[in-house]
Amino acid sequence: MFIHKIDEDVSLKLIELSDDERVFDLTNNSRDHLRAWLPWLDKTTKLEDTKEFIKICLNGFAENKSMNTVIIFKEQIVGVAGYNSIDWENRIAYIGYWLGKGHQGNGIMTKTARALTDYAFNDLNLNKIEIRAAIENKKSRGIPERLGYVKEGVIRQSEWLYDHYVDHVVYGILAEEWKGK
Amino acid sequence: MFIHKIDEDVSLKLIELSDDERVFDLTNNSRDHLRAWLPWLDKTTKLEDTKEFIKICLNGFAENKSMNTVIIFKEQIVGVAGYNSIDWENRIAYIGYWLGKGHQGNGIMTKTARALTDYAFNDLNLNKIEIRAAIENKKSRGIPERLGYVKEGVIRQSEWLYDHYVDHVVYGILAEEWKGK
Amino acid sequence: MFIHKIDEDVSLKLIELSDDERVFDLTNNSRDHLRAWLPWLDKTTKLEDTKEFIKICLNGFAENKSMNTVIIFKEQIVGVAGYNSIDWENRIAYIGYWLGKGHQGNGIMTKTARALTDYAFNDLNLNKIEIRAAIENKKSRGIPERLGYVKEGVIRQSEWLYDHYVDHVVYGILAEEWKGK
Amino acid sequence: MFIHKIDEDVSLKLIELSDDERVFDLTNNSRDHLRAWLPWLDKTTKLEDTKEFIKICLNGFAENKSMNTVIIFKEQIVGVAGYNSIDWENRIAYIGYWLGKGHQGNGIMTKTARALTDYAFNDLNLNKIEIRAAIENKKSRGIPERLGYVKEGVIRQSEWLYDHYVDHVVYGILAEEWKGK
Amino acid sequence: MFIHKIDEDVSLKLIELSDDERVFDLTNNSRDHLRAWLPWLDKTTKLEDTKEFIKICLNGFAENKSMNTVIIFKEQIVGVAGYNSIDWENRIAYIGYWLGKGHQGNGIMTKTARALTDYAFNDLNLNKIEIRAAIENKKSRGIPERLGYVKEGVIRQSEWLYDHYVDHVVYGILAEEWKGK
Amino acid sequence: MFIHKIDEDVSLKLIELSDDERVFDLTNNSRDHLRAWLPWLDKTTKLEDTKEFIKICLNGFAENKSMNTVIIFKEQIVGVAGYNSIDWENRIAYIGYWLGKGHQGNGIMTKTARALTDYAFNDLNLNKIEIRAAIENKKSRGIPERLGYVKEGVIRQSEWLYDHYVDHVVYGILAEEWKGK
Repeated sequence: MFIHKIDEDVSLKLIELSDDERVFDLTNNSRDHLRAWLPWLDKTTKLEDTKEFIKICLNGFAENKSMNTVIIFKEQIVGVAGYNSIDWENRIAYIGYWLGKGHQGNGIMTKTARALTDYAFNDLNLNKIEIRAAIENKKSRGIPERLGYVKEGVIRQSEWLYDHYVDHVVYGILAEEWKGK
Repeated sequence: MFIHKIDEDVSLKLIELSDDERVFDLTNNSRDHLRAWLPWLDKTTKLEDTKEFIKICLNGFAENKSMNTVIIFKEQIVGVAGYNSIDWENRIAYIGYWLGKGHQGNGIMTKTARALTDYAFNDLNLNKIEIRAAIENKKSRGIPERLGYVKEGVIRQSEWLYDHYVDHVVYGILAEEWKGK
Repeated sequence: MFIHKIDEDVSLKLIELSDDERVFDLTNNSRDHLRAWLPWLDKTTKLEDTKEFIKICLNGFAENKSMNTVIIFKEQIVGVAGYNSIDWENRIAYIGYWLGKGHQGNGIMTKTARALTDYAFNDLNLNKIEIRAAIENKKSRGIPERLGYVKEGVIRQSEWLYDHYVDHVVYGILAEEWKGK
Repeated sequence: MFIHKIDEDVSLKLIELSDDERVFDLTNNSRDHLRAWLPWLDKTTKLEDTKEFIKICLNGFAENKSMNTVIIFKEQIVGVAGYNSIDWENRIAYIGYWLGKGHQGNGIMTKTARALTDYAFNDLNLNKIEIRAAIENKKSRGIPERLGYVKEGVIRQSEWLYDHYVDHVVYGILAEEWKGK
Repeated sequence: MFIHKIDEDVSLKLIELSDDERVFDLTNNSRDHLRAWLPWLDKTTKLEDTKEFIKICLNGFAENKSMNTVIIFKEQIVGVAGYNSIDWENRIAYIGYWLGKGHQGNGIMTKTARALTDYAFNDLNLNKIEIRAAIENKKSRGIPERLGYVKEGVIRQSEWLYDHYVDHVVYGILAEEWKGK
Repeated sequence: MFIHKIDEDVSLKLIELSDDERVFDLTNNSRDHLRAWLPWLDKTTKLEDTKEFIKICLNGFAENKSMNTVIIFKEQIVGVAGYNSIDWENRIAYIGYWLGKGHQGNGIMTKTARALTDYAFNDLNLNKIEIRAAIENKKSRGIPERLGYVKEGVIRQSEWLYDHYVDHVVYGILAEEWKGK
């Protein structure tokens, strides 16, 4: 019901239980595509798993610890994005996102990440946002780079991806840096 | 962040913790006005009480048992409305609402209740909606009556209001009745 | 162990875990009979389900939110009755009941409901009692009618019964009305 | 509401929240008397403490782990007795009890303990009952002795009583022993 | 990681989740041997059961209610010992223990029980320790007897062991008695 | 009771509730010293706060999510160190530590961090360890540097310290790197 409209084509909607089938179908249809960089595909094999994920999202939102949205492009759910966690003591949000197969290259995720950055600084009054991406994941790294995030380090062997470890690049942007943009 | 736009002036926004001050101020400024028909004013005397209320709302939303919104009129929070509870087994939603002092008479609540009725039937696929109002509360009863709800009974001494009991009129509308409208 | 004796033949006993087999057998032997008006038969198919129900009853009793009893007629459990919930803020109890097949027509339920009404007003000091019955369920409606309860409304499509909705008649009686009886 | 009648004068009633004032008053009026042998008097100084105790009793009953009753003598609450805990794996109940000041010497507690012993063996189908009493507490020790319980040991310094340790005599009776009586 | 060294050969180590396989294997290889006196063998048939037991141990330790260790003899886990519960109000610890098959007769358990008795009096500042053993279990009874514990009673039919009841001898030692040793 | 001996002078002991006074006194006596780099001093003003911290430590240990120890130097508690969290999915431990005033410069913390690194790789079988230190905190940064940890990044404005943000240097070491040492 609740929508944050970014432009004519792209909106964010707080994820809800009634999105379960559409999010699961998107996951299922993009399984190989997503599995290259996301660690949870093999644990998300049936609708019930997506339901469980949405419940965790909603509890995190209710406790003011996270906020997950579905990305709507031309009335279709094409991805998930949000704050995986919010550290209120240090005023930092951690943004995460993924797009289903075939939806890349339209600028959807750049717009989404810009909207989430804006909201974190302007409405939630946070001080910093971080985005992490695997060092080889060029597409994902392009998002914070296009938005002017600063590369702060390469955290080695940060994530186990089915059969190998992956290094993460950490990008960060400060409230004072964003304001100038 | 998340908005359901009803028309140029009126929107509903999922209630969030960051709304606490504005909702508490609205409550405080409308205290005498609201106390005539709502039983919780004497238990809502400080900001912390409103925070507690919002947490209960968010937990209910996360568990898919209720949904509460703030009503925004010309960028200002003017009231609270939503489904106090949703009975999924019998597919019934129970709508509740209040407007702060000075915001009556602009049709805000009728639009809000219509939007909530629409959403319950069209998106949540429910079968019935009920609205209860005190028998003497003409303004509140006007809302379901204008929307074509059917009066189903007068439940006597249904609520204790500080120092006396109040009879409630129960209004209901069925999905099949709403479709024709 | 604990009994409320109504007359020579009829008593109420707080439901206990050790009643599980007798309550389940009664349910099982009256399955078709009860299924006409009660929605939970298809979810009560094995002893474990009745145990779960009794635990919920006992927790409700421990939290002072409900009170369920087994009805004993000539040393045999013949039904279940009690306050499904007690609304202490508004001082209202909601009575529910059922009798196993073959035990109707002996006045057992009228005596039971009278005793529960008495206890709610005299000992619990409540202000109102409500009983709901499906509009077509003549036998069930006869109980509050015989005890002088007032018909307060017909709540349409109030309950989903396996494959159709059922309208409920709401009956209520106030403490001041009961005292004259 | 629920009573287990022992004889014309003495009954047991499952303890309920509505007994709070009467149990607290009895405690308060017997404070010095009870403090000689019971360790909880200094932690039971206001009505709220007795309420908390009753809630613990009711939760224990709901979970089938204990059962506490008030002893009613000529329509007045004169004490508390019951199974402090029930060990279902080994089928043992542990009986505890106290009488308010001035109610001793009428045989009330012997009748009560006999009824609790009967119920444990005949209805709960337990195998053993234990009663513990401080070695110097002649009156309390008289109860199991009169009922034929066997002295099984003296557990030294078993309980801290405000400013000194107390030795406990353990009495036990087996189902097979009780049947002969 | 954390060790309490008793002598060159024997140590106690706080039980940890990573001990699960070694404790389960020890249990499995000593099954018939242990089943003679311990009631939980038939409920410990797979690794998961031992894991569950270790979690309960760790929770009890975190809540300061119990403390369980694995006994290490020449770098091998040979048994489990500890305080099954600690009664802080009355300052009593209840020691329990078992050794795997083939490890008896080396004095391991006497050293272990002595260390646990020492620690309870000297570090935890308790007032009494109790050890219970089945009346026929000569080896187990030898431990408290060698350490100078006093026999305080025989609690009849205290434990159900698969197909028969077992009497327990209760041994106790007081802080003042231990100091002289 | 449970000790991990590093050398003649230095040991680690799993933190326990009975350490509360010594840890609180150490905190209190080092307050200004610690406040320069640790954010929790103003929330640790009474014994109860340290107790609460220890309970959180013990629960984390019981759930296998963290492990905190007190550092003992010549029989005196001089600091706290451990794994603030363990990420089992990615096999990473996060080490944290602090020393009370006057205990720096003895090599205690380097030995402690080496022992914790050893244990994480050799016993817990983890793949990576991270240590974070404020960029200006030379003493703290010296620990991972001396142990051969690799500097992986500078995470800007990572922590709010009473009245300003602090940048964190992230150091990491991999299992394969440690083995060669």
